[in-house]
Amino acid sequence: MKQKPFQDIWPEPATYCFGCGRNNKKGLQIKSYWEGDDAICTWEPEEHHMAAPGVLCGGIIATVIDCHGLNAAMAAVMKAEGLEIGDEPPYVVTTGSLSVKYLKPTPTNKTLVLRAKVKEISEKKIVVTCSLFSRRKECARGEIVAVKVPMIFWQK
Amino acid sequence: MKQKPFQDIWPEPATYCFGCGRNNKKGLQIKSYWEGDDAICTWEPEEHHMAAPGVLCGGIIATVIDCHGLNAAMAAVMKAEGLEIGDEPPYVVTTGSLSVKYLKPTPTNKTLVLRAKVKEISEKKIVVTCSLFSRRKECARGEIVAVKVPMIFWQK
Repeated sequence: MKQKPFQDIWPEPATYCFGCGRNNKKGLQIKSYWEGDDAICTWEPEEHHMAAPGVLCGGIIATVIDCHGLNAAMAAVMKAEGLEIGDEPPYVVTTGSLSVKYLKPTPTNKTLVLRAKVKEISEKKIVVTCSLFSRRKECARGEIVAVKVPMIFWQK
Repeated sequence: MKQKPFQDIWPEPATYCFGCGRNNKKGLQIKSYWEGDDAICTWEPEEHHMAAPGVLCGGIIATVIDCHGLNAAMAAVMKAEGLEIGDEPPYVVTTGSLSVKYLKPTPTNKTLVLRAKVKEISEKKIVVTCSLFSRRKECARGEIVAVKVPMIFWQK
């Protein structure tokens, strides 16, 4: 059975996110899935996501690491609570901090793979590491600390 | 006399950068200037840069902090070498690492101000801190470590 993307967990307002919202027509529209205990995303940049011709912009790299990492944190929370994607989430998570190391230039003309690992889930936060690969070469490596946010934040 | 933006320092390929390239029609097109020893950028998000309606996407925040910080590093290098914006740069800089703390939600419907400070210029790297303000409230705080890249990288 085909998995639902993690992006389906979120309340409706988050479906407009520039990085991962399916309803943001000008956004990156990344999709995240489980592959064993890792969270995987494959994504193809568009030409205008460049830093310079042929090389992906560092801010776009930070965006996909942040959005994929945050979705991995959200999916891990659901799994820890015994919930499926599609069930009502008990709360949502937001990025408290993000760090990225740029290891080598990332080409824009190849499919990219993001692989995230959930390092820690505690009462208040979830720590996720996430690497970006182009043809199996690790081009960037990031970490996000996600913090829990009451659902009331979304119900405005 | 009106200052030239730091973005005018760069070789032509960088004018297509998603974050700060004047020739990227779908990009953010930020512009950075000196205000005393600080580097300042004012920027207005577009609606599709949201994380959710009314709130700016964390990846876009990372992008403007990275691009403004990197431009501040480049301008600081020029100043340290006694060069003006418009002179041939001795080399360019690229982001080695980026970190961002998200302090509070950033509204999308107000002009944002980025203020960067050059903390360190050494033989190999430049360290820049950069805060993002909305109506004088600090919404995010970042740091980038920029590294020097030979001009040959751009001459392909």
